[in-house]
This record gives sequence, structure tokens and C-alpha cells, in this order.
Amino acid sequence: MQTDDRKTLEQRHQMSELERLRHSCAHVMATAILRLWPDAQFAYGPPVETGFYYDLECSHRITPEDFERIEAEMKQEIKANHVFERIAVSREQAVVDASSGRLGGLAERPGNPSKFKLDLLGAIPEGEPISYYRNGDFLDLCAGPHVMRTGNIGAFKLTSVASAYYKGDEKNPQLQRVYGTAFKNKTQLEEWLKMQEEAKKRDHRKLGQEMGLFFMDAEYTGPGMPLWLPNGTVLVEELEKLAKETEFAAGYVRVRTPHLAKEKMYLTSGHLPYYAESMFPPMTLLEGDDPAKRPLLREKFQEALHDGAELTPDKIDTFLERAYQIFKAEGLEGDRYYLKAMNCPHHHRIFAAEPRSYRDLPLRMAEYGCCYRYEQSGELFGLMRVRSLNMNDAHIYCTEDQFAAEFAAVNEMYLKYFKIFGLEKYIMRFSTHAASGLGKKYVNEPALWLKTEDMVRRVLQQSGINYVEVPNEAAFYGPKIDVQVWSAIGREFTIATNQVDFAVPARFGLEYRDRDNTMRTPLCIHRAPLGTHERFVGFLIEHYAGNFPLWLAPEQVRVLPVTEQQLDYARALVAELRGAMVRAEFEFSNDKLQGRIQRAEAARAHHILVVGQKEQDAVAVAVRIHGKGQQGVRPRAEVVADILQSIRERRS
Amino acid sequence: MQTDDRKTLEQRHQMSELERLRHSCAHVMATAILRLWPDAQFAYGPPVETGFYYDLECSHRITPEDFERIEAEMKQEIKANHVFERIAVSREQAVVDASSGRLGGLAERPGNPSKFKLDLLGAIPEGEPISYYRNGDFLDLCAGPHVMRTGNIGAFKLTSVASAYYKGDEKNPQLQRVYGTAFKNKTQLEEWLKMQEEAKKRDHRKLGQEMGLFFMDAEYTGPGMPLWLPNGTVLVEELEKLAKETEFAAGYVRVRTPHLAKEKMYLTSGHLPYYAESMFPPMTLLEGDDPAKRPLLREKFQEALHDGAELTPDKIDTFLERAYQIFKAEGLEGDRYYLKAMNCPHHHRIFAAEPRSYRDLPLRMAEYGCCYRYEQSGELFGLMRVRSLNMNDAHIYCTEDQFAAEFAAVNEMYLKYFKIFGLEKYIMRFSTHAASGLGKKYVNEPALWLKTEDMVRRVLQQSGINYVEVPNEAAFYGPKIDVQVWSAIGREFTIATNQVDFAVPARFGLEYRDRDNTMRTPLCIHRAPLGTHERFVGFLIEHYAGNFPLWLAPEQVRVLPVTEQQLDYARALVAELRGAMVRAEFEFSNDKLQGRIQRAEAARAHHILVVGQKEQDAVAVAVRIHGKGQQGVRPRAEVVADILQSIRERRS
Repeated sequence: MQTDDRKTLEQRHQMSELERLRHSCAHVMATAILRLWPDAQFAYGPPVETGFYYDLECSHRITPEDFERIEAEMKQEIKANHVFERIAVSREQAVVDASSGRLGGLAERPGNPSKFKLDLLGAIPEGEPISYYRNGDFLDLCAGPHVMRTGNIGAFKLTSVASAYYKGDEKNPQLQRVYGTAFKNKTQLEEWLKMQEEAKKRDHRKLGQEMGLFFMDAEYTGPGMPLWLPNGTVLVEELEKLAKETEFAAGYVRVRTPHLAKEKMYLTSGHLPYYAESMFPPMTLLEGDDPAKRPLLREKFQEALHDGAELTPDKIDTFLERAYQIFKAEGLEGDRYYLKAMNCPHHHRIFAAEPRSYRDLPLRMAEYGCCYRYEQSGELFGLMRVRSLNMNDAHIYCTEDQFAAEFAAVNEMYLKYFKIFGLEKYIMRFSTHAASGLGKKYVNEPALWLKTEDMVRRVLQQSGINYVEVPNEAAFYGPKIDVQVWSAIGREFTIATNQVDFAVPARFGLEYRDRDNTMRTPLCIHRAPLGTHERFVGFLIEHYAGNFPLWLAPEQVRVLPVTEQQLDYARALVAELRGAMVRAEFEFSNDKLQGRIQRAEAARAHHILVVGQKEQDAVAVAVRIHGKGQQGVRPRAEVVADILQSIRERRS
Repeated sequence: MQTDDRKTLEQRHQMSELERLRHSCAHVMATAILRLWPDAQFAYGPPVETGFYYDLECSHRITPEDFERIEAEMKQEIKANHVFERIAVSREQAVVDASSGRLGGLAERPGNPSKFKLDLLGAIPEGEPISYYRNGDFLDLCAGPHVMRTGNIGAFKLTSVASAYYKGDEKNPQLQRVYGTAFKNKTQLEEWLKMQEEAKKRDHRKLGQEMGLFFMDAEYTGPGMPLWLPNGTVLVEELEKLAKETEFAAGYVRVRTPHLAKEKMYLTSGHLPYYAESMFPPMTLLEGDDPAKRPLLREKFQEALHDGAELTPDKIDTFLERAYQIFKAEGLEGDRYYLKAMNCPHHHRIFAAEPRSYRDLPLRMAEYGCCYRYEQSGELFGLMRVRSLNMNDAHIYCTEDQFAAEFAAVNEMYLKYFKIFGLEKYIMRFSTHAASGLGKKYVNEPALWLKTEDMVRRVLQQSGINYVEVPNEAAFYGPKIDVQVWSAIGREFTIATNQVDFAVPARFGLEYRDRDNTMRTPLCIHRAPLGTHERFVGFLIEHYAGNFPLWLAPEQVRVLPVTEQQLDYARALVAELRGAMVRAEFEFSNDKLQGRIQRAEAARAHHILVVGQKEQDAVAVAVRIHGKGQQGVRPRAEVVADILQSIRERRS
């Protein structure tokens, strides 16, 4: 299972309507900035998830105090309702215009050539069309597309300014990056601004620290690898328990695999050398018994890897042999080990570990496996982009006949989870292949593609799942489905990916004996409805604003005896609850009750049970629920039973 | 927590009575072999866990068919009751005797010098005493010790013959290795032989494969890293559930930490550079954003590491800075990451993640953490010596006042586990320091050593724990306790180690604010009662001969409907059980019932529930328990309730 929500370049060119609008707004912002500071030089100005930005160099240092003036100029440009005009030009003409300062400018600027545009021009491959876009006086080197007119930009707002290296490379000059956002209309903009406010309060990094959920220790354990603190570990383990129970009911079996594999594994799977940059660098283990030999091997392997061999499964052993010959010539011997970046190959090896028959299928193999990916440090972001990923993974090996039912069952599982977490809005993006990419971007099995996609499509239609079909975005080895959900405040998250795989099982030589005694390769469904702990917990923190439902709450119950006279009663109550594995604590001190209640609320203890003499005499408790206030005095046994039931049923 | 059951050299010299006897028997065997084949040349002949061996070179190829003849000669030598006489000699004399063929011989052997003894002599450091041992005609270079006379060897048996490289190095000549065992008397020998027979049947590698518990994939994932198959994963997860419940009841909190850490972590803990050879080699991650920079750094770090710096915690940052300067000079930059070989440093960092007060102590931090150790490939053995270890780890941070109670509670937990697994025989080896090793082998805190050891001793005495005190075997940073248990067939296993640590927390700067507002360093207890999954499951397989109690059994219940008429009834029963998370299956086919019962027995399904029409009409089931046969027909509800209770109570 490979989850990757970064947009491909190709996707970027297929801009959505909103992205087009935002990209146009970036041009309008550049127009406005040039009106105020005519020496500004523009570099990149793309739409991004939250709006747009434009990188620029300028004698004036832009600050948020300037936003009002810039916005006023922008409004003028929008009011003027200029057409966004596309102009095809020759490379020669473009170089002339850039040299004159005209590109990314309102007019020619003698002595101030458009230096970044000149550089960008140089990066456009020979033979590719070159185009400008013009709105009013502003002319920009741009592939587009844009909205029709500046007046189509319904509502916008500048949001922040930051510094950024040109092309993200710290060897390049530092530019100013001005961020903004834009929407079709004012209502949408205001809703979004409100959501941003709310999202800031719910920021998973902020709440994660406040609530003792996780801890990033860049200095000692490294960036992007969260350490789960006790409260966060509760969340993680409750999610695993949920997955385990759900999967047990759905007939899955569970396995556990090491975090390492030898190079041969990833050559066989096809991840090496192509995926190598997303994997942690290898370790070389020497298998001799002489400790003096243990220092690392040099990069001889790389040599063998890159001397032109087309690595197909049948050539891997030959290749490895050659590599080891190079080692030996250097007086070195060893095996290269990699941290796993995905669990599939390990599961495939378990499938291959014994002879399989059609009677063993479907084989649903689950593991909450921990994978490691070498994300760029600059891209790491809280729990949302990390280097260590605990994945709710499973691989379903099945026959073609079983595929539809298995795939439908996976979707059912998603819907079950959505219900538990109160997720009302979701969409499944069904990515299919494109015939033009066969043999290049996609494994060259035209019939299988059509057949499998058709099966997937039919299941989606029949089950009434909310989905959209996106051509030419499938995985290399089969169609995939990205699952997007919206949090309680309306933010969108990609939480999981399902993939159908009809290529890799064959690379691992997986097969089963069919009814007719022939050997066949199983289909494989990769699925991970709860995504990774990291991303899913990050999502849940925002979704619940840290106020988790009882079954998930790190501290489920806090018992507060009013005076010392109720201490034994309180202790017995906590003991009863803890005996049933309820995370119950009690607090008694000389502090006033009100102060202790406030502390319990601040700690987000879900149930706060206050016991005074009256409650004790009546074998009762005064119930208070975090964020919801007092719920009245109720019999102790009833409250305990309710708590247990709410946890068992995972009530939201 | 570091578990290491390999004997130190020092321990080897302190031979037990039994080891002395066995080592003497090796000399007697050599005597006998020389009588039969006078050209035999002897190399090493040590006692081992199961007896002894002697490596030799000989014109005759010894086979088990020769054992009777050799044993007959050995009996003669034992009957002769020769004294084992120790003879101190000069190095010069020893070289003369070895050259004449006299060492490891019955007489001078012109033209056949004692070549291995000559080589071994060369390896004895100058100034060390050199000694022979003689029994009858046989003279051997030997440091001893031995029993008094050959007649003291009560009972012995030659067991096998194998080949082995001289000194274990494949560049050296291959020798014959003859194994035998010896005991004080015949009864003990016979008991041992019977146990060996039984152990062979219970071999965890054999049963592990038969029962689908685990799978070693040396080719793809590497040796020593088990993949847990579905049935084995059940065992592992049941053990974790047991630990989780037990620790929850004992007031532990749980954390989860990544499998990696940066070099600074292990420099701070003191594992680097000293423990480096037992760790996997490092990976170097470049944190820049240029993928071309990603290939591995060369071994420049090692340079900085070994240029004479005494690495104390306060010097680590300076050291790292120097190392990175060397990198930079080479045009390289990056951080070195290591797979964790123990969980303690990560837990220490969590302790340090927030300010702690005496009110937070004791803090009991648990994690079933997965560690990686670079064991030599030749030493790997099934689940018993592996490279990936899932450890039942926890660290208890406490004040000195709390130490005794915490330590006693840990012991209580052991006893609780012993009861669950029906372990009747155990011993705790309490290893203390030796004053002579202070500042060298042991952290130089004489008062703390005495005080802590005294606390431990008192707890052990007061709690009536079965223990033995072993001086001069403590860990570097505090006293330790190795827990040895005996399996159902009387084999001994070291399953866990507890350690008291009063040094490393200070290296990590751990501290808490005490009542009097001063900052103090907590004591730390490392504990892992269930050891590692690998070793503990390996032990349990032998202990139960694969016939696990109901709560642990991979397949807890198999329901067998006699005819198709009981199919619905059987299905409903399975659904009821699975609804309560019982691992229940059912099998219906046209095969005869008897055959299906046999298959269920062979699969070690714990409960086999047969339902015919009679049972269905009476809402009953015919109960059969694996290995125990029929238990009669009983009401269905009663049987279900019994199953659930047995699982809940973890009945043995």
C-alpha cells in the first residue's frame, strides 16, 4: 500500500476551476504590486491548496501592513474586468521580452530585465510551446490556464508573507513570498476564513502538545518520527483495537513482519531502483564472523545497479551475483538491507511461504505495519507528513471471481468507519489508466486494465458509494481509489488509498492451485481504511478539536471525592472501572472542588464523577461530561454500566 | 533493557562443578581416541551447555559407529581412576613439548608435532602462567580446572560428531568435532537423555513450521528476523494483551517510539562507540533537499569517533560538531541514524520531554518495543537468537524511597506470570558489582552500589523469591537480575533481565523537582518479565509442546456439523463465539466425521465441538478437547460460557 497525496506535475496542469481562479488572482496580485513597486521581479506564482502565492524580489520589503494597499489595487484590476489573453510566442521573442523587463511587468523596464523569467525560459525544453498571458498592462510568461476575465475572481484576500529561496534551493537568492486566497464569491471566502480560524484552534500540533499526545524529538530521534506519549498511545491502541475487531469480524488474519528486508526484496517488487529516493538509505551487513569486517561497504552496489541492466524478476539473481562480484573484487562482502517503505512485499513473501490452493482464497492478511519513508525534511509537517508511518494495512489475495465481493466488502468497511467517526462527507477518487500510458506509466496489460476497472466501477455504482472517476492517475500496477474525507469543520483530508494490483504478485511468483489443477496468480487488493496512525490521529485531533468520544478519550473518567470521607468510595469506584479496563483516575487534594473540576475539564477527562456524602449514601454519583456540564445525580451501577456500554459500542 | 545470555570469558573460567566434570571427560575422550588413532591432533576441548566437545584432526574419519569403541576405552580410563595432575611449565618447555607431539598426546610423536597446541601457546599473552593437565599417559595444555580423578566422572555418553573450522574461521582447516555429555551419575544422564528426546519432539523450529507460527526468510528479509504467520501472530498478540492488562492493573502507562534514533542518542546513552558492533550499521540521511546528495556518506564519522576523544555527555555536542566539520570538508553533510538496539534511550527522552515533579513518580513507562541487534549470523538460532526482538519492556522512574516497593511489585508481576504459564521452577540470579571493578567495569559510585544492592537484596529476601547472588556480574550501570525458568520437560531458559540503573538517567540529564524544590535524578528500573516475543514464544512452544491452553491456542474452537442438516446450527454457534472474539472456525465437507475430527486434532484446535441432529435438537454440543478426547454432550450455552470464562481467566 502506497499512500501519496502529493500532486503529480501532470495533475498540476489539469487545474480545477478553483485553481484556475486562484492562479489568475496571483497575476492580479502581481499587477497590483507592480503598480506600487515597479521594480518588482516575479518568479513562480502557482495556485496551492489554500489559495496561491507569488515569489518576488523587490526593493520594498512587503509586510502585512501593505496588504490593504495591494488589495485596493487588486480590486481596481478586478473592477476593470480585463480579459486574460493567451499569446503564443517564439522562444526568441520571449527572450527579447524578458531581457527588456517586460515579462512579469507592466511595461518595458530598461536596466531591469526579467531575470527569473529568463531563467525559467531556459528550463522549458526545446520544442515545447511557449505562451504569455496578459491582463490589462500586465504580461507574464505563463502556460495557463486562467479564468476569462479578472472580474471572474469573486472574492480574495492576502493572507501572509514569508521568505523562500528561488526554486526552493538555499544556494539561490531569497525571495519574498506573498500568499493569498481566492474564491468564487464572498460567502465562500468568509466560510473559509472562519474555518481557518477554527482550524488554528484545532491545530493538531498545538493540541498534540497540550494534551500530551505526541512529541517530536528532532535532536535525538530525528525529525518526522513522532514518539507517542501515553495519551497519544491510547489513541493509537484504540484505533488498532477497532481495526483488529473489525477485521476479525470480516474474516482477516493478522501477521507481523520485520521492518527490514534485503535488497532482493525491493528489486523483486520493483521499488528499486525507481523508488529508492523515497526509501531510507541501505545498511550493509556483513555475514562473516569477523567483526573487523563489519565497517560499511562502499557504494559498489550502486555501480552494479546503474550499469544499464533492465531489472526484470528473472534477472535479479544474475544482477545480485554481479554486484557481489564487484564487492569481492573490493575485498567486501555483504547484504544490503532497507527499512521497509511499505508492507506489501513482506506480505507477498508470507503468501509464498506455503503452497496455496483456491480453497485458501480469499486470504485477507492484515498488519498495522510500521514503514519508513525518507520524506524531504522541508516537507515534514506535524503528523501529516512524517517519516515513520504506522499503516492500517491489509492485502487481500483473491481470484477474479472473488474480486467484486471482496472489493465491495472493503468499501463497506470504510462506510462502517465513517459512521463510527461521524464522517458525513467523503468522496472516493477512482483513478484509472490511460491507454496512451500502457507499457510506460502503466503495466502493459490492456485487457486486464479494462476488466479490473470495469469490476471496480460496477462495485462502486452498485454500492451507492460517493465517487468520482479520474482518468490517467492509476498506480503503475492497477487502478486505485483515494479516499477523501471532510473534518467536522469542513477541511478536506486524504486519509487512505486502495489499490488493485495485478502485476506485483506475478513478480513475486505468487500462485495458487485452482479447481482445475492449473496454477494461477491471485489478484491483490491493497487497502488501509484507517490510513496511517500519524495522519489519522492528526485528522481526528482536528475533527474532534481534542474532545474525543468516551471510547477514545485518553482519560475516560475522573472521580472527585468532595471530602476525605468519600475517599474509599471513590477509590472503590475507580478500582471497579479500571478492573473493566476503563481509563479512570481519581483526584483528591485539599484544593476546592471547583478548582479540581476545572482541572479535570482542562485535562479533557471525558466523564467527571463527583461524589459527596449525599452521593455516597445513595450509592450514586454526580455526573459531569467534559464540555457538556452537569448531567445530574444517578445511581452508581447505572453510570458504570452506561460508561461500559458507550465504550463497547464506540458511541460518538 | 539489555538481555544477553552469552557467557563472558570470565564466567567460563569460573567453571561450575558440572562443567569441570565435563571438561575432564573431554580429556578422557581424547585419551581414548589417541589409544585408537595415535595420530590424532587436538585443538579446543571445552565444556558446553549440553556437555562437552573436542575438536581434532585425525587420519581416521570418526563416525557414530565408532562411539562404542571410544566409549569402551573411556571406561577403561575412568576405571583406572587416574589423578588429574596440574603441572606448571615455562613457555619454552611447552613449546618443546608441543613440537615433540607430546601435548594432546599419550607420548612423544616424532614427525607429528602438536600443531594446534603450538598455535594456542602463541596466543597466550606473555607473562600469563602456562599449565598442563595429565591423566595417566595423556598430557594436555590446559588451564583447568578439572575433577580430582577420572573416576569422578559418574556417567557419560558420546552424542554426535560434526565438522568445525579451527577457531571457527573458515580460512582455517576443517576439523572433526566429537560431542559428548557427562553427569555425576547414571540417573542424571538418563533423565537428560530422555529430556533430549522430548525436546527434539518439541523443537520450536519444527513445531513452528508445522503449526504455521513463524517463517524465516533468509533470502528476502534476512536471517534472524522471523515473520510471524497468522497462528504465531495470535500468540504474540495474546502475550501483548496479557502484558497490557497486567501493566494497566499495575499502574503503568504505555508509549510507542520509532525504531530509529540519531547518533547523538547512542553517544549520550554510552552505547556508542562501545556497543556499536552489536548494533546494525548506521544510515546517513542528508537533510538538504537535493536528491543528488542522497547517496551514503563515507566512513568519516568513524574517524572523528576514534581520534582519542573520551566521550562524556558534556562533550557530545563538541564531538558531533567536529564530526560534521570532517563531513563538510568532504563535501558531505548529514545525520547518522541507527536502528534501536534497546528502548531505554527513547523512553528517557520521553521522560525528559516535560518537566517532572516528585508527584509524577513513580512513572512506569511500558512499550512492547521492537529492537534490532546485529547478532553474528553463525549464532542465530530459531527464535532463540534473532536479530529482531520484540521486547516486553518498561522503565520505572522512581525516587529512592519508592524503589523497594517498585522493585517488589516487579517481582510480584513475575510470579503472577509464572503462575499463568504453570512455571513451577525458576531462579533469579542477582548479579552484584565487585569493588575491584569500580571505575572500570562498573560506574564509579561505591556508595550507590552498596545501597542499591542492599535494597534489592532486602526485597528479594522479604518476598521469599527464589534467588542466588552472583558477585561481579552486574551491568555497567547497576545490579541486575536474570530470570531463569525451567520448561515442562526440565530445560532451563533465561527469559528476562531486570536491571537497576543509577547512571544512564544522569547522562540524559533526567531530573524531577523534589518536595524540597531541589532537582534530583530518578532511579530507573529496567524490566521485561515476558522477555522478547521471540524467545518467550520459542520457550512456550517447547513448554506446551505446541498444545497451548485455550486462551493462547491459535484455533480455539472448531465446530463440526455431522451432516448438512446441522450446518445452520453450526454456523450460528461459530458466529456467536466469533462475536465474542473467540477464534472459532467450522468445517463441513463430505468427508467422514472421524476424518474431520482427526484433522482438527492434527491442527491442534483446542475445543472440537461436534453437532449431530441429537445435539441440535437438545441445543447442545458434544465436546472434545485436543489431546484429551471426548468430554460428553453438554448444553450449548454452558459450553460457550465455559469457553469464555476459561479464556478470560487464562486457565492453563
